[in-house]
Amino acid sequence: MKKNSKILILVTGGTFDKEYNEITGKLFFNNSHIKEMLDLGRCKINVEIKNLMLKDSLDIEKKDRELILKACLETNEKKLVITHGTDTMTETAKLLANNIEDKTIVFTGAMIPYKFGASDGLFNLGSALTAVQVLQSGIYIAINGNIFEWNKVQKNREKGVFELTN
Amino acid sequence: MKKNSKILILVTGGTFDKEYNEITGKLFFNNSHIKEMLDLGRCKINVEIKNLMLKDSLDIEKKDRELILKACLETNEKKLVITHGTDTMTETAKLLANNIEDKTIVFTGAMIPYKFGASDGLFNLGSALTAVQVLQSGIYIAINGNIFEWNKVQKNREKGVFELTN
Amino acid sequence: MKKNSKILILVTGGTFDKEYNEITGKLFFNNSHIKEMLDLGRCKINVEIKNLMLKDSLDIEKKDRELILKACLETNEKKLVITHGTDTMTETAKLLANNIEDKTIVFTGAMIPYKFGASDGLFNLGSALTAVQVLQSGIYIAINGNIFEWNKVQKNREKGVFELTN
Amino acid sequence: MKKNSKILILVTGGTFDKEYNEITGKLFFNNSHIKEMLDLGRCKINVEIKNLMLKDSLDIEKKDRELILKACLETNEKKLVITHGTDTMTETAKLLANNIEDKTIVFTGAMIPYKFGASDGLFNLGSALTAVQVLQSGIYIAINGNIFEWNKVQKNREKGVFELTN
Repeated sequence: MKKNSKILILVTGGTFDKEYNEITGKLFFNNSHIKEMLDLGRCKINVEIKNLMLKDSLDIEKKDRELILKACLETNEKKLVITHGTDTMTETAKLLANNIEDKTIVFTGAMIPYKFGASDGLFNLGSALTAVQVLQSGIYIAINGNIFEWNKVQKNREKGVFELTN
Repeated sequence: MKKNSKILILVTGGTFDKEYNEITGKLFFNNSHIKEMLDLGRCKINVEIKNLMLKDSLDIEKKDRELILKACLETNEKKLVITHGTDTMTETAKLLANNIEDKTIVFTGAMIPYKFGASDGLFNLGSALTAVQVLQSGIYIAINGNIFEWNKVQKNREKGVFELTN
Repeated sequence: MKKNSKILILVTGGTFDKEYNEITGKLFFNNSHIKEMLDLGRCKINVEIKNLMLKDSLDIEKKDRELILKACLETNEKKLVITHGTDTMTETAKLLANNIEDKTIVFTGAMIPYKFGASDGLFNLGSALTAVQVLQSGIYIAINGNIFEWNKVQKNREKGVFELTN
Repeated sequence: MKKNSKILILVTGGTFDKEYNEITGKLFFNNSHIKEMLDLGRCKINVEIKNLMLKDSLDIEKKDRELILKACLETNEKKLVITHGTDTMTETAKLLANNIEDKTIVFTGAMIPYKFGASDGLFNLGSALTAVQVLQSGIYIAINGNIFEWNKVQKNREKGVFELTN
């Protein structure tokens, strides 16, 4: 809750940012909606948004993860939120955990695109931005009310939820 | 982040829950929307909602605050979120702070009713539910990305924002 | 359905255009949302919007109605849609009916402000823009699926609906 | 505008009714939203909804079209609205035009699913329900503000709009 620290938001895509293409009838990535969501939340904290990529997390490859890692290492900020597709979120988290020690990094995502009326995205973004301010150094996943340490959670793809690993 | 603890949400009203009355053209309270908002956020944590009242915070009187205090004292839960109108939020927080020591209580509210398309409510609710899980005992206000200790903040009514006191 | 004729939309305010003021907590008029609504409806017909006033229809006075009449008479367009608060819609319609013979004028409004998530406004606007293209000269009210001739309808303020007069 | 006639709405699917599947991340059909949309529009006219199928119009086959024709012929109602995917809307319209003479049938659809925040569906539904009340017998397409006779229009798939044929 030190008010002078800035939070860096790294955008990588995921369900969060998917839109409906009126011409093709398919879902696609156009632009990130994170700025619009912060405006909607009347977010008053010091935040910088950096768009790294707009990808479905199933399409995130080794070199993409390395790009995310590089962005985390290069910034002077100690508090980062990463928006990321849920399917491979823990894989990216693992790479960061193996290489970063002194930063608080919170992953978040959504089960429903923000542009749909019924998205959980705004709830999750509020959660992630709060977690990153309060938690000690480490890599976390904040989604649907839960805040998990990255290595104690897995996505149950059948149910579409994150669960604690045994 | 202990998964076994339940969070109690006390509903008192505020902008959060205001609706538009089609017949009179006025804003009014009908029902609380907190359950609907938790569903929208696909909230997966253990939460109980208790509706205490549905009031504009300018209409909350001494006996209402005492009712809120009583509800906080009577419950066994150690983690509470209180939805409350923003105008007198710090007054209620002060009463709780003077009487409760061993609980984490997070107030939240909204600048725009949830039922409006452009409400900040879902963002704030995600924030409050995260703050209450992570923070030490104390009375806090989580709104628009900020998490304030109750006695270090005031509402700037002209700007419609919460600010740190000097 | 002649594609070359333009439709003039006269904006007068009404529930349609009311917004929530975050600072005061009251409803107020800021800007008209008709352009935004046409964009949402991907409206492809030739339409011109003219903002006459932004008033609750209970606040529309004799001189306001005369301004509306003047705008209807001055334009060369033969097809007009007027957005108007529902409470005194039939009064304005009467003034127009007494002074205009050769134009198709369709009034419409909303029971819930457009900016609320659950507004009927978009439905009514689609209805009015269709009615004005198809109907013969005359003054009509298109709302909530009904298309009424102006002099055969009254608003039931208790129920908040328009009904045929006996 | 005779108030005693009922309008039959035949649901066949199309973009109108597509939803986002949280588990698979794909669009799919679950239930029709027409009833919910009529409620949102506070529709006060006498309407009956009949769900025939929930299909993308590219998946509508000869036997499906015959089912739609059969439903139009079997009902006693003279005024019908058909919700239908836009890609093959004119094909179904042609079959009906070749077999039905004494009914007013208005097709409508949407460019964006209703469940997305930014759908044109409600606008189009208001338009179709108005057109069907006012127009003479015939087969029409009401979409994005236009009301076309079925045999004078084609969908421009590149632009995603309906246009008059030359």
